[in-house]
Amino acid sequence: MKLGDGEFLLPERRARIDEVIANRTRSLVVVMEAVCDPQNVNAVLRTAEAFGIQELHVIEGPMKPFDRNKKISQNADKWLDVVRWKDAGDCLRALKARGFLVYATHLGEGSRDLAELSFAQPVALVFGNEHRGVSREAVALADACYAIPMRGFSQSFNVSVAAAISLARAVDRRLVERGRHGDLPPAEAEALRLRFYANSVKQRVRVAKAERSAERRAQRSR
Amino acid sequence: MKLGDGEFLLPERRARIDEVIANRTRSLVVVMEAVCDPQNVNAVLRTAEAFGIQELHVIEGPMKPFDRNKKISQNADKWLDVVRWKDAGDCLRALKARGFLVYATHLGEGSRDLAELSFAQPVALVFGNEHRGVSREAVALADACYAIPMRGFSQSFNVSVAAAISLARAVDRRLVERGRHGDLPPAEAEALRLRFYANSVKQRVRVAKAERSAERRAQRSR
Repeated sequence: MKLGDGEFLLPERRARIDEVIANRTRSLVVVMEAVCDPQNVNAVLRTAEAFGIQELHVIEGPMKPFDRNKKISQNADKWLDVVRWKDAGDCLRALKARGFLVYATHLGEGSRDLAELSFAQPVALVFGNEHRGVSREAVALADACYAIPMRGFSQSFNVSVAAAISLARAVDRRLVERGRHGDLPPAEAEALRLRFYANSVKQRVRVAKAERSAERRAQRSR
Repeated sequence: MKLGDGEFLLPERRARIDEVIANRTRSLVVVMEAVCDPQNVNAVLRTAEAFGIQELHVIEGPMKPFDRNKKISQNADKWLDVVRWKDAGDCLRALKARGFLVYATHLGEGSRDLAELSFAQPVALVFGNEHRGVSREAVALADACYAIPMRGFSQSFNVSVAAAISLARAVDRRLVERGRHGDLPPAEAEALRLRFYANSVKQRVRVAKAERSAERRAQRSR
């Protein structure tokens, strides 16, 4: 049984997957540096997925290694590429070597307004720890630091809110500056399509099994 | 002791309050209809405050009356005007009578993209229940229904994320279409200034008391 060929899926599900693939990108990526609260990590993953982001980088904090939180990886890894790092420098240098501009959310001297940033090139958006923000190393390696204008007494946005506002802006700008947002090269799109087909088939098999056993239980109790 | 005159506050605190007041608005308001999770309500209040929104309307759901959640009102009511309603129709008709256009987040026939909406006039943004969305009554009363484009498998944004993306967009458009975001009339600004001064003085008195009693405890334990 070849799971990747999609013949076990309903045409609607295949069409949905194809639509998602067409909107997927790896030229805008999200980096979470030492974000501690698993709820926040999950919220950022969910929001990024909804914006068509395929690739996220998670840099472990000193407090709580990301790997130990099973719930996160189980929900997200199937549909996203989550890359884990132990060191912020290694992660950001690798992204820069691949041609990404690194924009770190950080309010300091020389910080710019989110609205001023260009998204014509591939961009990695870096979000820092809930309390300490991004590290000095990340600030030093960033091509730009930016902040979302705050107009009230609150000193900061929740990290998932900051990610949502940044990604919404980034997608808008990409449509203007690059003409499109989803931009996987054909070979990558095809590989991802087969993976998503396979994931969906496995999901259907699981659901069908669960339904059958629920039915059997119901019959027995009659 | 007149708390409202601000003479008990440090000049920096007074300047901060004045800056917040200059960025405050009541011509963009947020309506939450039957949002159940107090964490979500709090997150929306915090985000709205950060965007300079002064007035929020909370319509009680059938499940959990908003009033009973003390934590929410204690944190937010001091710096925001949170108006509670039992009926969505009453709330939205009152806002329309005051000249607000009502935009409800709802994906249906005739729904528009957030990016298409005009914010030249006063606008009330309506966010619905986490599971059921906005009510039929709210959809019927809305001047427009809108959705935030979803590009992945996720079917919806978390309500606080949807509010953040909508408010960021609304503020951007207001700056373009109205020339400014903060726009309290002088008399309203002055009334709010006195209230914020008074809140801040009370806060200082509380902090000072807490510090003194902590000091006494520390001295006793020496």
